[in-house]
Amino acid sequence: MRKLQDLQLLIDEAVTNLRYPAYPAELYEPIQYILSMGGKRMRPALLLMACDLFGGDVENAVLPALAIEVFHNFTLMHDDIMDNAPLRRGKVTVHEKWNKNAAILSGDVMLIQGYKLMMNVEDRLLRVILNIFNDTAVGVCEGQQLDMDFETRSDVKIDEYIYMIRLKTAVVLGGALKIGSIIGGAEIKDAELIAEFGENLGLAFQLQDDLLDVYGSPEKFGKQVGGDIISNKKTFLLLKSLELANADQVAELNKWIDAKQFDNQEKVKAVTTIYNDLQVKDHAETAMQTYAEKAFDALEKINLPEQNKQYLRKFADSLMVREY
Amino acid sequence: MRKLQDLQLLIDEAVTNLRYPAYPAELYEPIQYILSMGGKRMRPALLLMACDLFGGDVENAVLPALAIEVFHNFTLMHDDIMDNAPLRRGKVTVHEKWNKNAAILSGDVMLIQGYKLMMNVEDRLLRVILNIFNDTAVGVCEGQQLDMDFETRSDVKIDEYIYMIRLKTAVVLGGALKIGSIIGGAEIKDAELIAEFGENLGLAFQLQDDLLDVYGSPEKFGKQVGGDIISNKKTFLLLKSLELANADQVAELNKWIDAKQFDNQEKVKAVTTIYNDLQVKDHAETAMQTYAEKAFDALEKINLPEQNKQYLRKFADSLMVREY
Repeated sequence: MRKLQDLQLLIDEAVTNLRYPAYPAELYEPIQYILSMGGKRMRPALLLMACDLFGGDVENAVLPALAIEVFHNFTLMHDDIMDNAPLRRGKVTVHEKWNKNAAILSGDVMLIQGYKLMMNVEDRLLRVILNIFNDTAVGVCEGQQLDMDFETRSDVKIDEYIYMIRLKTAVVLGGALKIGSIIGGAEIKDAELIAEFGENLGLAFQLQDDLLDVYGSPEKFGKQVGGDIISNKKTFLLLKSLELANADQVAELNKWIDAKQFDNQEKVKAVTTIYNDLQVKDHAETAMQTYAEKAFDALEKINLPEQNKQYLRKFADSLMVREY
Repeated sequence: MRKLQDLQLLIDEAVTNLRYPAYPAELYEPIQYILSMGGKRMRPALLLMACDLFGGDVENAVLPALAIEVFHNFTLMHDDIMDNAPLRRGKVTVHEKWNKNAAILSGDVMLIQGYKLMMNVEDRLLRVILNIFNDTAVGVCEGQQLDMDFETRSDVKIDEYIYMIRLKTAVVLGGALKIGSIIGGAEIKDAELIAEFGENLGLAFQLQDDLLDVYGSPEKFGKQVGGDIISNKKTFLLLKSLELANADQVAELNKWIDAKQFDNQEKVKAVTTIYNDLQVKDHAETAMQTYAEKAFDALEKINLPEQNKQYLRKFADSLMVREY
């Protein structure tokens, strides 16, 4: 089995070697730019990993893996316009560096480029793989729409939140694993199980992210504590709190949500106090655990040698943080 | 042979029957909305026509034809954002009726939907047809980028203009015919010839459009005379004039182009006078004729019964205006 780290490096190199036409410059330069920003290349590496685990040659999966990376960066380019984000990975976003039109159109070409790359599979797999890619792509768009809808809604339920993060972030992890496994020679049934593994792991990971924002030690994770609280992001913790809160607590939460001017630390402290009073950390950890277990359940059912399953277990484990 | 009009109606009906999920509403309603605006459904009808001419059953080509229509409307939805267009076919554009983010994301889903629809072909044709679709889609994006680039450039040459309109409008006509012919059973060589026919016809048609804006009788074409002149659109006529003009004429043209406040009629009259002095109408007509001839040359080489060629000749002829 290839190390995930090696696969990430392999992808990083392949991304660097991707060539685009020089003309029209404003169409293709933003693509080179966003792809050169780096990132962990986790999605394409997962695709290669699944291919490898099912006995395939990862070299046959590099272009479809790049398809997933190009697709992912297309969604980032368009999401950044929609979210009005000035920075991504510490660098100026495409719509800021060029303009919104360039970011719209370059993103469009990236989506097409994603299809072109994804088509580098055997004829007999072409339809099944493109069907997965289509479903993944539609899911991500639906997830982004729901995420935007939620920003202006004050009645978002936990179930809706899970549904949204499943589409926006988990589906593409499942899709990458599914495509990779099929290229590697997996039966459809096993491909679906590894997708289920990936999707549930993605959900658990997202919930962990929500938790780390508030309870993660800044030294360990290098993040500002309470960034989500400051920006009123509708995380599991906030939504669960609004569900469980009494009238006074709801009023207090809404006071901070509606406040135009506030001291960051004071807001984080006040909201965290309510979170603690309502024990939403426990709820989030339980939910996280539920999805992690679902992932492991799916994993057990996959028809793979024990050694390969152990690899997946270790991988899943490595994503889960033991101590905040 | 089926009448083009009947094929347009067939498509119109099929578009009306397209169903999208109800949720998330803001993602799918704009798709229904833009598709219900109507239009001539010319591109998908051409796809069906080509299928029919090569002896195929048009029923087998309806979904790929819808793919072309959905794709075309995706480009309109995104172009309208980029062009800041308030209206399309007399109706409020998507980004005005909803907002820019909805128009970006709905357009993205439409592009994916285009691929899903286009995949409704036999397995043995899937790759070849998707390759054509990919090339068409990239071409249209490149054309739109060049069109935007040209807006801020004052040194656009005629060759570049032709290159741009080929990509932005002609390539998709050629692509539609090519895909339809292949579904109908055409050999690749004939598919390429009918694409060449369509592309050159598209160029001729676009040049005719430039001419009609200035020289078309408003009673006959229901358009405001000189709309392109008023909006400084870089048409064949303007670019050719800038190429041929002496220093005084260049200064006069630039005076009108740069003018912030002006009387519409006065501007149209002044610019048209320069056009007439430089005889750019003749140049445009010659260019138009050249592309029409290229279209007919390609047509003659296609391996089709004379009767079917006659049908294509008549169709091409019907697009060309004899009297302005």
